[in-house]
Amino acid sequence: MKVALDAMGGDKAPFETIKGAMKALEEIETLHLVFVGKKESIEEELKRYKYDSSRIEIVDAREVIEMTDEPVTAVKAKKDSSMNRTLELVKDGVVDASVSAGNTGALITASQLKLKRIKGVLRPAIATMFPNKKDKMLILDVGATADCKPEFLNQYAIMGSKYLEILLGMKNPAVGLLNIGTEEGKGNEITREAYNLLKANKGINFVGNVEGTEVMNGKIDVVVTDGFTGNMVLKTAEGVAKVIVSSLKEEINKSFIYKLGALLVKPAIKRLGKKVDSSEYGGAMFLGLNGLSIKAHGNSDSNGIKNAIKVANKFAEMNFVEELKNAIDMGDSDEKNLD
Amino acid sequence: MKVALDAMGGDKAPFETIKGAMKALEEIETLHLVFVGKKESIEEELKRYKYDSSRIEIVDAREVIEMTDEPVTAVKAKKDSSMNRTLELVKDGVVDASVSAGNTGALITASQLKLKRIKGVLRPAIATMFPNKKDKMLILDVGATADCKPEFLNQYAIMGSKYLEILLGMKNPAVGLLNIGTEEGKGNEITREAYNLLKANKGINFVGNVEGTEVMNGKIDVVVTDGFTGNMVLKTAEGVAKVIVSSLKEEINKSFIYKLGALLVKPAIKRLGKKVDSSEYGGAMFLGLNGLSIKAHGNSDSNGIKNAIKVANKFAEMNFVEELKNAIDMGDSDEKNLD
Repeated sequence: MKVALDAMGGDKAPFETIKGAMKALEEIETLHLVFVGKKESIEEELKRYKYDSSRIEIVDAREVIEMTDEPVTAVKAKKDSSMNRTLELVKDGVVDASVSAGNTGALITASQLKLKRIKGVLRPAIATMFPNKKDKMLILDVGATADCKPEFLNQYAIMGSKYLEILLGMKNPAVGLLNIGTEEGKGNEITREAYNLLKANKGINFVGNVEGTEVMNGKIDVVVTDGFTGNMVLKTAEGVAKVIVSSLKEEINKSFIYKLGALLVKPAIKRLGKKVDSSEYGGAMFLGLNGLSIKAHGNSDSNGIKNAIKVANKFAEMNFVEELKNAIDMGDSDEKNLD
Repeated sequence: MKVALDAMGGDKAPFETIKGAMKALEEIETLHLVFVGKKESIEEELKRYKYDSSRIEIVDAREVIEMTDEPVTAVKAKKDSSMNRTLELVKDGVVDASVSAGNTGALITASQLKLKRIKGVLRPAIATMFPNKKDKMLILDVGATADCKPEFLNQYAIMGSKYLEILLGMKNPAVGLLNIGTEEGKGNEITREAYNLLKANKGINFVGNVEGTEVMNGKIDVVVTDGFTGNMVLKTAEGVAKVIVSSLKEEINKSFIYKLGALLVKPAIKRLGKKVDSSEYGGAMFLGLNGLSIKAHGNSDSNGIKNAIKVANKFAEMNFVEELKNAIDMGDSDEKNLD
């Protein structure tokens, strides 16, 4: 497969983006990469590595959307940005998928603008893998659409189930609706209505409401929520994990005995860190668009980039967009189209 | 002060409720307690302790609202429940404040039904203390009102600021609006409108939007959000903390060396556990009602109950309800009353 990489996107670009790309090329023999960005910077980075030049192309793009840029303005003003050019390669069928670790808001805007929604998709969603007690789960939407209608949530359930079916070969993934109580009838107006739609949806395995405390217990595979709540939950989880880890370090630094103990448990803590490290999960994906756009975490190191490229490659191999179109078509027979 | 305790409320009642009450009596010399519940059960528990009987009363209530009861139905059907009777003592002015660790939904319903809203309060809110990197912060609403109007959030900011002023003597607490982006104009319809109201509110120290990742960094004192999002964030934080701690234990159990290391860092981990333990923070409080109703965590041990009683006593001493009435009256001059 051919994957385009926004070489300039992310806090540590282009050093870590190119480094991650090189790792991906090593791991996937059939992979071809198109690096998009300032040609001279990319060539400079490439000097560090030995590689098969027939598997690499460079597309020059003279502008960079910065992490601090106002998303909509930047996407529209910086037409020759590495991010815009990357997505155009997907749109034009030059590549099979794309990866960017750049400005999230800009990538949401640019992906929708360039790739457009699949016919029948009410709103695109951003889906991301998240660790839980058992292993991991998919959560969507985590930020594409802040104001949701219940019908959007029902469609997210279909798209999310398809995602796990294709990425992990999972049969009938358990779908849970993120809510503030487990019983039917709990929640706000949107979740109460969404509950009924999900319950009536025969194309998914809906197991009911799931609370924030229970969401990580490993019983749910697809967690469905609106983009506001999803983003909030994700960022809270990240914030809490950070505070716990930093407090633990602080406590441990208080005495020599603690430090000695910490030294002994270090490998265990490291494995735990790896488990909750978002870079292990290959970033987030925009679902419902006519093309594959993968978002790697803004502060991705080379492993984060590598994993995002692997996910992009896998989804391209699986012909995910076509599969999703079929799933949406089928879902459509009992769906009212709000477009 | 005189505080009523729902002796039958909570997973570990009446053993832990009475035990916690005894600890509170020891710590606060001026405290009087009214135990509400099945007389014979309470008397049986009291046999375990030595106490000054002039500081204790028992009010018999023959029914118990169970944790699994449907809240609204239970409150209406079980008129002689310990929870209902506890709140009636507040309403009738027999006690200065009340504490219950019982069914949260039922306590929301019963508190509103018995105590009624303060005139001018659009919706009551549940406020709770939450640990952050620096120390702790107040977050509200965490579950009283799932569907919010922007005006409610503005009033929560006033009530929350007053809460910290009274409980901790804090001057001009920094108010943050929980949102999915920091810039003005970010979020969903409700937060975008609420932002403008908060910015224009001269009675509070509004510092802007705050994201889930940043909410625990210690820069915000009062975190304002709707009851759906607040409940979700709180429960997610709890879920994440639990998973991290249990994963850490699991990892550590994998080898003898880890176990040895863990033994050495145990006091450090224990202090951390205490920091994130909700029982340390004296439960949650219903703000905006004509009377003090404190909610202790459902699985409170005696320390959780003791701390909730201490908070109840302190707010009663501070004459919190009257103070809040004044603050709401002042806020009202520029507020549209939606009642």
